[in-house]
This record gives sequence, structure tokens and C-alpha cells, in this order.
Amino acid sequence: MEHLVIGICGGTGSGKTTLAQKIYEALKDDALHISMDCYYKNNAHLPFEERIKTNYDHPDAFDSDLLVEHVKKLKEGESISYPTYDFSTHLRGEKWVYAESKKVIIIEGIMLFAVPEIVELLDYKIFVDTDADVRILRRMLRDVKERGRTLDSVANQYLETVKPMHEAYIEPFKKRYSDIIVPEGGYNKNAFDMIVSTIVDKIK
Amino acid sequence: MEHLVIGICGGTGSGKTTLAQKIYEALKDDALHISMDCYYKNNAHLPFEERIKTNYDHPDAFDSDLLVEHVKKLKEGESISYPTYDFSTHLRGEKWVYAESKKVIIIEGIMLFAVPEIVELLDYKIFVDTDADVRILRRMLRDVKERGRTLDSVANQYLETVKPMHEAYIEPFKKRYSDIIVPEGGYNKNAFDMIVSTIVDKIK
Repeated sequence: MEHLVIGICGGTGSGKTTLAQKIYEALKDDALHISMDCYYKNNAHLPFEERIKTNYDHPDAFDSDLLVEHVKKLKEGESISYPTYDFSTHLRGEKWVYAESKKVIIIEGIMLFAVPEIVELLDYKIFVDTDADVRILRRMLRDVKERGRTLDSVANQYLETVKPMHEAYIEPFKKRYSDIIVPEGGYNKNAFDMIVSTIVDKIK
Repeated sequence: MEHLVIGICGGTGSGKTTLAQKIYEALKDDALHISMDCYYKNNAHLPFEERIKTNYDHPDAFDSDLLVEHVKKLKEGESISYPTYDFSTHLRGEKWVYAESKKVIIIEGIMLFAVPEIVELLDYKIFVDTDADVRILRRMLRDVKERGRTLDSVANQYLETVKPMHEAYIEPFKKRYSDIIVPEGGYNKNAFDMIVSTIVDKIK
């Protein structure tokens, strides 16, 4: 069985997770959906004060070697156990998730296209492109309401690392690597239809 | 029979014609490929000196009403006769081309997304996005070698109208209207595959 690896990249709040999730739901048992966020490095050796100062918007914040190893295994039809991440403690979770390989492996993350070893493994490279003002609005709502962050901490982190890192490690790879660029992520019905049609065609 | 209208927009030299042509060739008898360039207004009432001063990179340079009328007819399954255009004389050609409606109608042009009445008729909106430096290089080679233009006239036209009009009437509609944005037009194999898969799925 051939395994198709779909990479979905895009900035914070772009809608890439929504798009990945919708593709996953359309394919049901044929797909596996993995977020690169699960692969944040385990910084348990650092005190909390140090951990919150870490630049989480840099390729080095991720355990890319482990992700590459996992994607290679999945492409070979092998199962994996992937890590989880707790955004409130900034620690790798206790739980690892067992996942069997599927025909379609959907991987999404902000730094996906910034790691050449990952890019090489992707059969289709999709970039979700949403205006920066819309993205920070979505992030603000999510981080304040769902992750218990303050307005100030979200604003400071955005200006200090999220925005400059976006410009350094996300935006430059948009045109360089993307097969297609999708404006407005998960809410773009026609693009969603095109992606699903293509995948269904390839795996049938 | 349902008719699917695919609109392909993008700047000069973006590769939109190459992409449109490849899609047309992949679909063979099921498709009709029409270039918006054929619909340049007939300025036969103006002397040559006036015609070469016309701004050909503005939505008003096109006979959009005729294009809209034709697309509506094609969607109804009716045949049309569309005009031709002679770039050396800047005149509408003597010849009109008879075309029967097909399942898939591919329309491509620089100003396609700048005319709301046309946008409304498009079932899929594709934007071919290529860097401006690559686009002017391609245009320069084409206009000098194939259209008998001088380096200076291409450069002046580019700076005086092509570039400012691109920024006013092409770029702003890229994210506003596009279902997908395709980096590097006709040479992007994966995007081409995705578009053809989708169309074949829809018309089968």
C-alpha cells in the first residue's frame, strides 16, 4: 500500500488545523492527522520561568528528528507512538498516542516547511494563507479563552517572537515549497473540495 | 449537461496561459479554452498612434460585456463566435472563431478577477502567482522575440502601465477571490494534477 503524506503549513491562526481536521473527517478511516505541535521539545529540565521564555516559534523548538522518524515509519506502513504537549505547563505530556499507519497521513504545523528533512517527505504541500490581522485576532481569542493567557502576554509574545519568526521561517517558504496556497484555510469550500478530490483519486 | 467554468487569473508572464493550455490538453474534447485577450476592445476608430498609447492593462480595455454574454451562453450549452485580436496592429482580427460549448470552459486573463460580472460566473477561481521579476523577464523575451517589440518599449510600458495596473487590478483580487493560488503556473506539476483531478471528478 502506498502512503500519501499531505503537509499543511501556515501561520498561527491561519486555519490550517481546521483544514487538516476537515480533510481528516472527509477521509475517515483512511487518514491519520498529526499536529507538529505534539513534537515540541521536552524542556522538563528547565524551570517554568525559563520555559515560558523559550522561543516556541523557531524550528529549533521542535523535535524534528522524531517527527521525521515517525513520518518515515508511517510511510513504511509501521505504527508509531507520538508525544503530546501541554501548553499550560509548556511540558511534554505524560501520554504518548499509539497510531497505526493509514493511506493518508496529514501533518500540519507552523514550522513544517522550515525543516527541509520534513519537506522532502511530503507528497503534497499546502499552505494556508490568511491575513496577519485575522490571524492575530483568532490567536488572541483562542489563547485568552482556551489557554488562560492574558491579553498582554499574548500581545507581547506575538510582537516579540510570533511575528518576526513568521516572517523568517514561515512566509519565505510559502511560494518556495507550496504546491498550492489556500486563502482562508478551513472556510474555503472549493479548495477543500479540490484537495479531497485529489486525495481520493490518488488512494483509490 | 452541467458546464463547469474554470477561471485562471494572474499577472503578465505568470504562466497562466501555460496552465490553462495544459488543463485543456488533459481534458481534450471535454474542454474549451478561451483567452480574455481575444476580448480586447476594437479600437479601429482610433489612429495607430492613439492605439499604442491605450492602457491595455486596465479592465476598461476589455469588452467584458461580450465575454460575460459568451460565458452565459456557453453555460447554457449554446455555441458562440468569439473575436480574435492582433497584437501587432492593436486591432480586433477579421476572423471570429466558432466554438461549441463543452463540459469544461477554461477562461484565462489578467483582468479576469477585476470584473465582478465575470467572477460571478466562475465555478473555480485559480490564481497563478509568480514573482514579478520572473514575470517581466518572461514578458520581455516574449514581446521582443515573438511580437517584434523593442527592449525600451517593453520596459517603458511595463513601468508606466503594466506594473501599476497589476498592483491596482490584479494583486488585490488574488486573496479576495481565489479558491487556490498556484505558485509558478504551468510548471507546478502537483497543482496541475490537483486541478485536473477535481475537474474530472466533477464532470464524470
